[in-house]
Amino acid sequence: MISEASFIDVALRSWKNNVDRAGTFFSALSQEELQREIAPGKNRLIYLWGHLAAVNDRMVAILGFGERLHPELDAMFVSNPDKTVDLTLSPEKLKHIWDEVNERLWTGICNLSPSEWLQKHTAVSDADFIREPHRNRFAVLLGRTAHLAYHFGQAVLAKHES
Amino acid sequence: MISEASFIDVALRSWKNNVDRAGTFFSALSQEELQREIAPGKNRLIYLWGHLAAVNDRMVAILGFGERLHPELDAMFVSNPDKTVDLTLSPEKLKHIWDEVNERLWTGICNLSPSEWLQKHTAVSDADFIREPHRNRFAVLLGRTAHLAYHFGQAVLAKHES
Repeated sequence: MISEASFIDVALRSWKNNVDRAGTFFSALSQEELQREIAPGKNRLIYLWGHLAAVNDRMVAILGFGERLHPELDAMFVSNPDKTVDLTLSPEKLKHIWDEVNERLWTGICNLSPSEWLQKHTAVSDADFIREPHRNRFAVLLGRTAHLAYHFGQAVLAKHES
Repeated sequence: MISEASFIDVALRSWKNNVDRAGTFFSALSQEELQREIAPGKNRLIYLWGHLAAVNDRMVAILGFGERLHPELDAMFVSNPDKTVDLTLSPEKLKHIWDEVNERLWTGICNLSPSEWLQKHTAVSDADFIREPHRNRFAVLLGRTAHLAYHFGQAVLAKHES
């Protein structure tokens, strides 16, 4: 039990580090900087931030913490590519949503027991889970941590860092 | 014990997925494509690939599997920025090293017991580990998985994907 908690602790730290790093980075950008593309013709920084907020918001439901908070993000940041839909929220509002979503998630994941981490997430069927028991909540956490790092690596390119 | 193994299994799958995804991507690039920059003035794809190979090679020693295989990679891909040092290895050779390093790592990490995963890695001192027991092998694995994802997110930008 102590040992299981140690594995979870490491994963939570990794998640938190990646969320905080992204949050600090995006929150410090001006409205003008958020309009920058990460590379010519690619996504803008504001789109990446909204995309990460939307995907994290989806985790609320996938991890079984209840309904997600901001389904309206998907049309702007998930279902459609950047620059095809008007963004109807300000950077301040996005920052508020970012903090709200990640606090909701953090509260939820800090309260899961080891056995709950190994239960299936809500996006996998009972039948699939019998065949693939690794499709559990813990896998969602690690997958989304990598997803954050993937897009954060892109975001820093627009900020003249490497 | 069974449960600990489940947490490790998820992390190994995430590691392997990220290694395989990067390996498939870089291996398919032509010599010419490998010279592309991920964004104007930024690292070339060949540099990112070599950088990931070098950092994974360092893991061999950090995880306590013995001496790393290719310390000569560091001068080209870690200690110096891209385009400041001549790259003295061909893409074929780099592909060979990539496979060799990742196979060595995979063999090592598949043989670690849960308690060994929670032991300190070789880059942390005994004194620091007493204060910060989360600086263990498992943290190295999760950190390096995020590192792979971070740079892979950058690499795909040069390949006209998002």
